[in-house]
Amino acid sequence: MRKIHVIGIGAGDPDQLTLQAVKALRSTDVFFILDKGEVKSDLVQLRRDILDAHIPEGTYRLVEARDPERNRSAGGAAYSPAVGDWRSARAGIYERLIAEELGEDESGAFLVWGDPALYDSTLGILDEVLGRGAVTFEYDVVPGISSVSALVARHRTGLNRVARPVQITTGRRLAEGFPEDVDDVVVMLDAHQVFRQYADEDIDIYWGAYIGTPDEILASGPLASTAPRIERLRAEARERKGWIMDTYLLRRHPRGQGG
Amino acid sequence: MRKIHVIGIGAGDPDQLTLQAVKALRSTDVFFILDKGEVKSDLVQLRRDILDAHIPEGTYRLVEARDPERNRSAGGAAYSPAVGDWRSARAGIYERLIAEELGEDESGAFLVWGDPALYDSTLGILDEVLGRGAVTFEYDVVPGISSVSALVARHRTGLNRVARPVQITTGRRLAEGFPEDVDDVVVMLDAHQVFRQYADEDIDIYWGAYIGTPDEILASGPLASTAPRIERLRAEARERKGWIMDTYLLRRHPRGQGG
Ligand SMILES: C[S@@+](CC[C@H](N)C(=O)[O-])C[C@H]1O[C@@H](n2cnc3c(N)ncnc32)[C@H](O)[C@@H]1O
Ligand SMILES: C[S@@+](CC[C@H](N)C(=O)[O-])C[C@H]1O[C@@H](n2cnc3c(N)ncnc32)[C@H](O)[C@@H]1O
Repeated sequence: MRKIHVIGIGAGDPDQLTLQAVKALRSTDVFFILDKGEVKSDLVQLRRDILDAHIPEGTYRLVEARDPERNRSAGGAAYSPAVGDWRSARAGIYERLIAEELGEDESGAFLVWGDPALYDSTLGILDEVLGRGAVTFEYDVVPGISSVSALVARHRTGLNRVARPVQITTGRRLAEGFPEDVDDVVVMLDAHQVFRQYADEDIDIYWGAYIGTPDEILASGPLASTAPRIERLRAEARERKGWIMDTYLLRRHPRGQGG
Repeated sequence: MRKIHVIGIGAGDPDQLTLQAVKALRSTDVFFILDKGEVKSDLVQLRRDILDAHIPEGTYRLVEARDPERNRSAGGAAYSPAVGDWRSARAGIYERLIAEELGEDESGAFLVWGDPALYDSTLGILDEVLGRGAVTFEYDVVPGISSVSALVARHRTGLNRVARPVQITTGRRLAEGFPEDVDDVVVMLDAHQVFRQYADEDIDIYWGAYIGTPDEILASGPLASTAPRIERLRAEARERKGWIMDTYLLRRHPRGQGG
């Protein structure tokens, strides 16, 4: 039976790999690396560096494939179907990779950025591949340090306040309104700095870009005064590197109460 | 200047330690272990096992202290004040430990279960100790694999569904109602199996107890049929070990749509 590991590799710092992840790497015959073909090749390079750091060359094979382009121009309502098509296209690629590149008794691995549980399609795609029935395999998941955990660790704060909930959401959702019933909100996948929409509320922001990498930038403080600073830092960094990945926590204060 | 590491050690599996955590352990002179004095001494033992596995004996000191009892009998409205008193009492203990047991040029560490960012008081207490001004130190936070990440990895599912939010909350909060605007909810600190309250809704549950330990128990499926099974498993386990720690994800299906 073919085996597949889905391995969370942390969100930027190679030392965020767990011992379990290192063991899984060492038991892998074939690594599948999907390249988005664009500016993010820095991230592909980081995956290669991780392999170099933890497993002797010549003990594994590396199979690279081109990730299909996601139709990012599709706005609002079209979002889910576009994601659906894209997922099917990827399922076709994964199926072929597993069938053609992985021997019956071998182990393959997908290295997933951060934690495979957060805004990542790998598990959904593997389910879809299994559902098609053309190829069979066992698989397991090695959890990783997410950019969310890395963010708050760098800011030395918690995700939740005592006995209270926290929500993790996307920039797109935040644009529709501040979530109900919760005052601590982590935002990922925000290309539009939606936090600016809430700058007149009593909210603190904890922001980080390229967290855990040598390019890491952090900023925090009351949203009203910190938002313009983040805008500036973000624009400069994006200009310099050609791409950016950032995440932030919004911590809203109950009305009438400070700090 | 004294240094303190707050180190997330994962939620049960010693292999969930990150490489960064191992490095932090090795650079620590004094470990502070707070014992709740009760059945959870299994968890204290796990911390000791982690030290034994990663650092040579004789290279560090271990300082154990008794954690003050939290007033758990205080119900509903009294919850926050009770937590506040308890936190002050702990701040006093931490202050004394740091002042008396850690030399001016030494590094100390607190080993925190899971990820220090989730429902853990260590960061808040250290802030309070610094605020009192009687002792000074630098500190950093090493993120850890939370029981939340470990739970969904074992169930090989994601926390969020495509482009949708996820909320992390407590049993106490869930008892007040299913959170608004979100259909994926992770519940921690639930001593009362509050999920039973929602058994007639179209919800899937992914449940785990003692995740990552040799006692791990997992169960998942439609809430209506799975809840009674979890009740049974939970009662048996609690009976056998004297204590339990469990976490679960509730995944609600939009009305009128299956799977
Ligand atoms: C497709 S999601 C993948 C998340 C990943 N699975 C995780 O656990 O962090 C990509 C988003 O994660 C966040 N992200 C990932 N790595 C990051 C980093 N090093 N610094 C800041 N944000 C990061 C950004 O919000 C980005 O838009
Ligand atoms: C005080 S909170 C600490 C959470 C911890 N900081 C984390 O990141 O997992 C304790 C709660 O975490 C959850 N928990 C911690 N370890 C667990 C494990 N190994 N299996 C299941 N649940 C666990 C339970 O919900 C428990 O009530």
